[in-house]
Amino acid sequence: MSTTTVLWTAPAVLGLAVLTQATNDPLAISTYLAVLTGLLTWRLIPAVADRFVAAGLSGKDVNKAHQPIIPESLGIIAATLYLICLFLFIPFPFRQWFPAEPAVLSLRTFPFQRLGEFLAALLCLQSMVFLGFADDVFDIRWRYKLVMPTVASIPLLMGYYLSDGITYVVLPIPLRPILGRILDIGILYYVYIAMLAIFCTNSINILAGINGVEAGQSLVIALSVAANDLLYVNGPDRPAAEVHLFSLYFILPFIAVTTALLWHNWYPARVFVGDTYCYFAGMTFAVVGIIGHFSKTLLLFFIPQIFNFIYSAPQLFRLVPCPRHRMPRLNPATGRLEPSDASLATATPTGLAVVRTLARFRLVRVATDDAGTPLRVSNLTLLNMLLVHCGPLPENHLAALVVALQVFGSVAAFTVRYQLVTFLY
Amino acid sequence: MSTTTVLWTAPAVLGLAVLTQATNDPLAISTYLAVLTGLLTWRLIPAVADRFVAAGLSGKDVNKAHQPIIPESLGIIAATLYLICLFLFIPFPFRQWFPAEPAVLSLRTFPFQRLGEFLAALLCLQSMVFLGFADDVFDIRWRYKLVMPTVASIPLLMGYYLSDGITYVVLPIPLRPILGRILDIGILYYVYIAMLAIFCTNSINILAGINGVEAGQSLVIALSVAANDLLYVNGPDRPAAEVHLFSLYFILPFIAVTTALLWHNWYPARVFVGDTYCYFAGMTFAVVGIIGHFSKTLLLFFIPQIFNFIYSAPQLFRLVPCPRHRMPRLNPATGRLEPSDASLATATPTGLAVVRTLARFRLVRVATDDAGTPLRVSNLTLLNMLLVHCGPLPENHLAALVVALQVFGSVAAFTVRYQLVTFLY
Repeated sequence: MSTTTVLWTAPAVLGLAVLTQATNDPLAISTYLAVLTGLLTWRLIPAVADRFVAAGLSGKDVNKAHQPIIPESLGIIAATLYLICLFLFIPFPFRQWFPAEPAVLSLRTFPFQRLGEFLAALLCLQSMVFLGFADDVFDIRWRYKLVMPTVASIPLLMGYYLSDGITYVVLPIPLRPILGRILDIGILYYVYIAMLAIFCTNSINILAGINGVEAGQSLVIALSVAANDLLYVNGPDRPAAEVHLFSLYFILPFIAVTTALLWHNWYPARVFVGDTYCYFAGMTFAVVGIIGHFSKTLLLFFIPQIFNFIYSAPQLFRLVPCPRHRMPRLNPATGRLEPSDASLATATPTGLAVVRTLARFRLVRVATDDAGTPLRVSNLTLLNMLLVHCGPLPENHLAALVVALQVFGSVAAFTVRYQLVTFLY
Repeated sequence: MSTTTVLWTAPAVLGLAVLTQATNDPLAISTYLAVLTGLLTWRLIPAVADRFVAAGLSGKDVNKAHQPIIPESLGIIAATLYLICLFLFIPFPFRQWFPAEPAVLSLRTFPFQRLGEFLAALLCLQSMVFLGFADDVFDIRWRYKLVMPTVASIPLLMGYYLSDGITYVVLPIPLRPILGRILDIGILYYVYIAMLAIFCTNSINILAGINGVEAGQSLVIALSVAANDLLYVNGPDRPAAEVHLFSLYFILPFIAVTTALLWHNWYPARVFVGDTYCYFAGMTFAVVGIIGHFSKTLLLFFIPQIFNFIYSAPQLFRLVPCPRHRMPRLNPATGRLEPSDASLATATPTGLAVVRTLARFRLVRVATDDAGTPLRVSNLTLLNMLLVHCGPLPENHLAALVVALQVFGSVAAFTVRYQLVTFLY
């Protein structure tokens, strides 16, 4: 690896040096660093995978006939290189304020708020990566998993409060006769932001379990965020352009490392991404949504995750028994995945009613005894639902279907955001 | 644990609520949070220790007769709770700028630079904790260990640059005829800061290996830093008072979690602290030294570590062979530790010359063959040197001796800093 390191490092640093002389545009430098980071991630993941197995970070790929042992939590490599990339990038958006002579730095006009927000965002992200990795190593309990994103988002809340602290929402037209056009929801806005962080970090984590699906859905969301940012960065609204530019600085390297990770994680997976990656991805989205001031648009990109969360709720809240693993199950005879299921023996009456309603809309498959009493229900995840609908599928087809759904969701999101919205606002 | 959590949380939150109403003094709130965090660390470490063993984080305590398996890396608990404590504390130093009505936040006078520096410091610390933990899990190679603190300190360098960016040093009197009273060393100052981070993080890590010694030495350094801060916080020099106050905000919770960790790590250790703790401790010192602008005074508190580093150099730079573990060895017959040693078979001529010189000053013990050719030398660490000097010691006596040396070093440091300094500056 040593010679390779030199072969890589020298031209990479030289390229950066040339680029920083040639341009003052932080976006060009961000793109350059993102591409480099992506390539490095792509190279490093297979190089270090064995050490993960040696450190006890590995798991059985249960949806393969021979159930190979695969290195787990390689998302930590993607996340760490992403963080290093952003650490190195910190000075660039602020270069125009650096004078030739440090002593006369124009402190009066320096955008300290912006820098504070940048650092706060990094702090949030790093906290979640750290928590995710701890979860991979220790299997942290659910209640702590829910609390931790809240603590992790404190710096971001503080940064948001200080950067502008806008806590009012523009209401849709139908509500205006009652509440007016603008409603200041005050502290509730911060509760909303904290909830957003919790939702984003956990929602990727529960739409998971087959090769490529975590990184695949995240890549589509990230590309959607970047496309949305690009609509603003050269626009006439300067404050909007600026915040979307900052969003791009965070999302471009994310796209790069996710692509690299997906390369190795797509069917048949050579590595697993781990909870680390899911938390890292979710928090990246929450952070860009918050600092870019487009959290509602962001939620539109999460349509499949929101659906999956609502659909999963009866199991998450234990109305229906929830087995530890709910991912689809391989039928070795056909080589296709089939829905996994859960016993209804200990389901609550509400749970049974929910299952019956879902069954009426063919959203679950229910196994009954001869008397028609429901015994088992397909587990309530989007992945199982797709299999109930489409019949058994090979693992890579199912993953591709989820990615396609995510793309479709994003197209719908753009339509709602930029076409239908005129009827509401 | 659940009931206990409630029993703890309710009065703790209540206490904080009462305190924040009663006082605006961030130092009071910092002290309160530090004590709580210390107690929580003290409780949590034994509660989670078994999970560390289950996750493969354990090590043999080789200096006990029966060599028990001890949970390793519990420093991660101390460091994580420390970080959570500081996350929760973020708003308090800035409370006076928060108006009753968020909309009229006095942004013009808000100390964004100070907040930026605070967040940058947290980012550095969290990076090192994360790296330390990764090192405990993966055993990272030395060269990466040296590079990582540099990357981790980028936010701090940026924060320093923007907070005042002072890069001149006041020269001691003997040098003034040649170079003047003040010398602006420019970019070299940032190199110095980065080196300080590398030195602090690694120097605790190489004065290690017996029960209680890592947390023990760190506690003495931390108390020295706090004592030094207290000399300024009520002083007439307002800028100095302010930076030392910020240093206290970082060092008080550190003292609390270190005390808790030391309780469980002192001889006979129930837990090991791990590289995580050593990096965390070292970076905390670097951070407070930098944001408190007392990096030279800080280095005076590191006298034993500097000595240990210089004394170790022949092995670290491979002039003398360096075995993987250099800690003292238990003599089961006496129950005392004796110096461990290394073969001189592959020592360089320079290495042999160094060993001969050290032997002349009785700083090492050399085993020779009948012809007087040196064969083995006691490993070049402060711990082994103390055993060469004082003869075999029980493990707890040796740890106590190091702590005593550290106290003696701090007393000397204060004498140099506040008495002898008048002859130099």
